[in-house]
Amino acid sequence: MAHSQEKSFTNVHIDLGARSYPIVIGADLLGDLRKGENIPAGTSALVVSNTTVAPLHARQLVDALSGHYPQVHTAVLPDGEEHKTWQTLNLIFDALLTHGCDRKVVLYALGGGVIGDMTGFAAACYMRGVDFVQVPTTLLAQVDSSVGGKTGINHPLGKNMVGAFHQPRLVICDLSTLDTLPARELAAGMAEVIKYGPIADMELFAWLEANMDALLAREAQALAHAVKRSCEIKASVVGADEREAGLRAILNFGHTFGHAIEAGMGYGVWLHGEGVAAGMVMAAELSCRLGMVDAAFVQRLRTLIKRAGLPTRGPVLDAQDNAGRYLELMRVDKKAEAGEIRFVLIDGPGRAVLRAAPDALVREVIDVCCIA
Amino acid sequence: MAHSQEKSFTNVHIDLGARSYPIVIGADLLGDLRKGENIPAGTSALVVSNTTVAPLHARQLVDALSGHYPQVHTAVLPDGEEHKTWQTLNLIFDALLTHGCDRKVVLYALGGGVIGDMTGFAAACYMRGVDFVQVPTTLLAQVDSSVGGKTGINHPLGKNMVGAFHQPRLVICDLSTLDTLPARELAAGMAEVIKYGPIADMELFAWLEANMDALLAREAQALAHAVKRSCEIKASVVGADEREAGLRAILNFGHTFGHAIEAGMGYGVWLHGEGVAAGMVMAAELSCRLGMVDAAFVQRLRTLIKRAGLPTRGPVLDAQDNAGRYLELMRVDKKAEAGEIRFVLIDGPGRAVLRAAPDALVREVIDVCCIA
Repeated sequence: MAHSQEKSFTNVHIDLGARSYPIVIGADLLGDLRKGENIPAGTSALVVSNTTVAPLHARQLVDALSGHYPQVHTAVLPDGEEHKTWQTLNLIFDALLTHGCDRKVVLYALGGGVIGDMTGFAAACYMRGVDFVQVPTTLLAQVDSSVGGKTGINHPLGKNMVGAFHQPRLVICDLSTLDTLPARELAAGMAEVIKYGPIADMELFAWLEANMDALLAREAQALAHAVKRSCEIKASVVGADEREAGLRAILNFGHTFGHAIEAGMGYGVWLHGEGVAAGMVMAAELSCRLGMVDAAFVQRLRTLIKRAGLPTRGPVLDAQDNAGRYLELMRVDKKAEAGEIRFVLIDGPGRAVLRAAPDALVREVIDVCCIA
Repeated sequence: MAHSQEKSFTNVHIDLGARSYPIVIGADLLGDLRKGENIPAGTSALVVSNTTVAPLHARQLVDALSGHYPQVHTAVLPDGEEHKTWQTLNLIFDALLTHGCDRKVVLYALGGGVIGDMTGFAAACYMRGVDFVQVPTTLLAQVDSSVGGKTGINHPLGKNMVGAFHQPRLVICDLSTLDTLPARELAAGMAEVIKYGPIADMELFAWLEANMDALLAREAQALAHAVKRSCEIKASVVGADEREAGLRAILNFGHTFGHAIEAGMGYGVWLHGEGVAAGMVMAAELSCRLGMVDAAFVQRLRTLIKRAGLPTRGPVLDAQDNAGRYLELMRVDKKAEAGEIRFVLIDGPGRAVLRAAPDALVREVIDVCCIA
């Protein structure tokens, strides 16, 4: 990150009545935690991290928390989506019980989305619910897991099938932790930032066009704005729909095609954000062919995605019948209803709708949007 | 059960705002379910039971539900507290995912407390929360698990350490299912019924004195009244304190000594209700020695407990220092705070308070209340 002289601090307030909480966004926050008046009180803290992130940031967080809690423990989990299982979750319960943590323990999730989901779920379940704080260390987690309260683990028969809605008491987005993030992961997180433009805020989209270089150079002020606006938009969407029924589905722009790409390639081959990036182009192209946006808009989106270092075309999943394979995968997606695929489409820049589309048209889109 | 000519139906309404639900109490309810207007809607149902209860009642429930849901599946778990684990819980998720159940599935817990706790927890977590219905088939589960929303599983390092608050949509207390309950388990459930007298309702206590023979003969009308009043009292206590802070603790009358007995003997040697029965006598005796109730009240409680076929004296847990062993076990109970034991004491018949007591007095009580 290019360290600017003045410190960039900003807050987003998530309004959920008794479960409201602040998202604090800024550089070097973990170092400044000693004075943080937002730290929830407790008899002890457990910092949950993984083998990749813990060596980078755990010491700093534990030191900072030592001024707030009589006891601070750590649990370091194996890294990777394949470890988002009950077996790994149980390591958190083991740590809590071995240390004799009571109902006043506060869990800290230090890492990306997997650590956040598992730590949040452990907090939801330990003694039927204790407090937790998110400390997301990837751009994806900062813009995506900070808002919404979704926690959970995977089951061998399905991703995120076991979980709970459990809101954090505080989210600390320390932009300095992004310094150590691999470029490919930074770009993947950017896909979720770009997403908010077409579905909700073309002003943000224009700002991203003007500031993509600063973002990729990890300038704190630019990152702070991108994270803040993403959290604000997600909060306004989720706020109207906390338990996920209708409106919240627009956050899945690009995800229907994206999930097919992830699943079709085998999870982990394409990063989630990479699938979403190519998926957004496909969904925009589909919107265009349905007469909802013009071709210039699709091109504008394609250009921004490309500048972020993200793929604008999908992979070929099946040499014989590529479009058929995409359709097959999209039909078994858990968001599909009775096999009907519900696409998030752009109904004029900045406005998303949920709609089915004719198979023939979807096939055309896949044909033109995949790597030849 | 002595089948009376007229049918005994009664309802208790649990008022929790949007999460309110009815407890339906009566004989032969599973057979009458076809007309039940309270059955929650869904795309499918999963009946969760165990190897003991399923052969007795699952067929009847599945048949009844087939009129309400397009698909009705079953999952039969191994029986016993030692199976209240993640491994067994996972069998429920396996069934849900293998059958392709979506968010509109309704889980039915057909069995005792263990089945209720696990099924409720599975419902709390599956796709971050689906509906469930309790069909308790033990007296203990009917009077205890019907109200409160506590669900969960055990962890090797502690009982009920992992769980959630998740309210059922409906509770069906079919008194006919108690016909097949072993006498020892019926008595153990009666301990929790008796409990409500000293802590909240001496009218119920007097009614129990007058009707204990009918209850032990499993007469439907008597059972209906006992279950109904128990649920009503628990609901009024829990209603003021849904997430368990202060008042709810009075429901643990007899449980502090009782847990020590269960743990000291090794779980399963004494049934939970048996430990609570002897524990209630000890807590009453302690209340008496603190000048809160007279000796006649303690004797009255002892007599009723004995008539229910329950133990009125605790076991000797340590031949050398029995009282010391009890104290040691009570101090590590999760309800203790920083090692101080909080007893639920009777402050005049029908009124409970939470209070610490001098060790010397507690030792005296244990000495006089244990089998010589």
